[in-house]
Amino acid sequence: MTFPADQPLRLDSGGRIEGLQLAFTTYGRLNDERSNAILICHALSLDQHVASDHPVTGRRAWWRTLVGPGLPLDTERYFIICSNVVGGCMGSTGPSSIDPATGRPWGLTFPMITIADMVRAQAMLVEALGIERLFAVVGGSMGGMQVLQWAADYPERLFAAVCIAAAARHSAQNIAFHEVGRQAIMADPDWRGGDYAAQGVRPEKGLAVARMAAHITYLSEPALHRKFGRELQRDGLSWSFDADFQIESYLRHQGASFVDRFDANSYLYITRAMDYFDLAANRDGVLADVFRPARDVRFCAFSFTSDWLYPTVESRAIVRALNAAGARASFVEIESDKGHDAFLLDEPVLREALGGFMASAAQICGLERGAI
Amino acid sequence: MTFPADQPLRLDSGGRIEGLQLAFTTYGRLNDERSNAILICHALSLDQHVASDHPVTGRRAWWRTLVGPGLPLDTERYFIICSNVVGGCMGSTGPSSIDPATGRPWGLTFPMITIADMVRAQAMLVEALGIERLFAVVGGSMGGMQVLQWAADYPERLFAAVCIAAAARHSAQNIAFHEVGRQAIMADPDWRGGDYAAQGVRPEKGLAVARMAAHITYLSEPALHRKFGRELQRDGLSWSFDADFQIESYLRHQGASFVDRFDANSYLYITRAMDYFDLAANRDGVLADVFRPARDVRFCAFSFTSDWLYPTVESRAIVRALNAAGARASFVEIESDKGHDAFLLDEPVLREALGGFMASAAQICGLERGAI
Repeated sequence: MTFPADQPLRLDSGGRIEGLQLAFTTYGRLNDERSNAILICHALSLDQHVASDHPVTGRRAWWRTLVGPGLPLDTERYFIICSNVVGGCMGSTGPSSIDPATGRPWGLTFPMITIADMVRAQAMLVEALGIERLFAVVGGSMGGMQVLQWAADYPERLFAAVCIAAAARHSAQNIAFHEVGRQAIMADPDWRGGDYAAQGVRPEKGLAVARMAAHITYLSEPALHRKFGRELQRDGLSWSFDADFQIESYLRHQGASFVDRFDANSYLYITRAMDYFDLAANRDGVLADVFRPARDVRFCAFSFTSDWLYPTVESRAIVRALNAAGARASFVEIESDKGHDAFLLDEPVLREALGGFMASAAQICGLERGAI
Repeated sequence: MTFPADQPLRLDSGGRIEGLQLAFTTYGRLNDERSNAILICHALSLDQHVASDHPVTGRRAWWRTLVGPGLPLDTERYFIICSNVVGGCMGSTGPSSIDPATGRPWGLTFPMITIADMVRAQAMLVEALGIERLFAVVGGSMGGMQVLQWAADYPERLFAAVCIAAAARHSAQNIAFHEVGRQAIMADPDWRGGDYAAQGVRPEKGLAVARMAAHITYLSEPALHRKFGRELQRDGLSWSFDADFQIESYLRHQGASFVDRFDANSYLYITRAMDYFDLAANRDGVLADVFRPARDVRFCAFSFTSDWLYPTVESRAIVRALNAAGARASFVEIESDKGHDAFLLDEPVLREALGGFMASAAQICGLERGAI
């Protein structure tokens, strides 16, 4: 479905987007009290197809381990909403959309967006759906950043918040990896200064390199070692620059398949939004001050021991700030050697702990089983 | 100086290089017994100018903290040799050299090389200098790999070996980062299938992206945080894809300055040699078997706590194998938050511990002070 906003989207940059469209998917049924809605926020390269296979690419639902009948984010109990972020390329207004003023794709004339802009757009959608208060906002990675932003900007509009494998601000190393990816895209002559769509080409090689670099950061060294080690593609070395090692072939595949499903300019804009993310920047860096108005929100944070992109120390800083703000915060650090990617995989501890948190929050919120 | 080999260089790939040239530099004086020679092996992007400023770029001597009068690798006491690796671009035969058979730059017709090939070429140089046994072979990073290869292939031709911040084989993550860099270079249309030199262009953008990605792996997250954090280039965000953060500007500078001093094809060949490096591959993975013939060599290994490219666990594996082989091995793990780059920086503990090891080895070897 697509939500056509009847108001312009005000942006942190000072600009605005007229005629905003948000592509979204829902699962389950909104109860009569409109009290069982959960908003799921997606990560950088994902989309609104959180619990159903992608209608175009056929890719399987990306959070099928957590969202569905009988799962922690139970589609038989909750009304689940997931929208493609503004700036994205899966149906929401983004740099590959047509600028109504020119009739051509926005390209680099699209305004810069922030995590707060993404959340502001989601809030418009949620309001249009007639939902005054979300039961929960849930997300991992960039989705977790949006969860924190929701708590900061709309504390009265959510009951619970679940932030998985995220951080309250992007580190220098996070920015560095994103900058490598952006430079790879912008170095591709088919990028055409961002105007490739109008010129009928695509910076496929640059985007593939960007994805390859990012993909390494999603996996832990032990996971790479266990999965690939120094295993070869075939017997013996090729003595060439062909993919000799399975890890090379795997990365090339990740790059090549990404360009089929993602827009290079969206990649630039969304990574920039993540790099700009620093939740406490306007509060002299004091995160507790950001969370103080959200002290009635029930929080749960998760991290994974081998996640070096958004390591446990970042989740701990969030939880410490929540505690300092007087908010209720649970925190679970999950033992895993799968790196950042663990939040998308079938991790029994995540499933069980999230299930427990959701059940408890539902009870406190008065969302009894069968009352829906 | 340049060493023109009078024999072809036999290669692991089965091929050979005729008319091999090795560019090298020496410091100090070879004693009458020819017993005070130290070979220094350089890392991926470095060269033979280990203790003197680069004659062309003016870059300062890269190991000026360790090599020089009164320093652990004392140029007043030892005869120091450092040669540019085969495959390099600082005067030794490499892909940018002219193929005598065609009169054109080799480009991708240059044969694939290995760390063992680099060492075999160095051994020819050392022999040509009339040195039967080196007092020591010393190197960090890829230089450390060469040190291990020396011990494996020419144990009778060295007295001591110092391996700093290295590993006995490249891990899946190591290969992955190199593959990203190679793909970035090969994605640049100015790479021209490796034939750019003959066509008068250079894949500068691709090589810069490769260097940026690699550079992140040379620094630790804490070092990046301390050095750059989220500091901006100027007041406020640009709301564009300009370099807003100092880390972005720093990385762009690293990329841009690298293309002025390094050849893209050399980068491909040398990274490939590193990825192929697996010292125990022909010994069923049993590293101790590789080192057994080197049990009379005095080893010293160093690692840095925050080095995530070649972490301490890799040095420990080397030391364990040396011990199992009956070799004398010292091991120093140095507390540092500077990441892999620490081996090139002024690290007092490295300087002192290396100084102690060298002094002790010199004494055992009979290299008395003043006897030179």
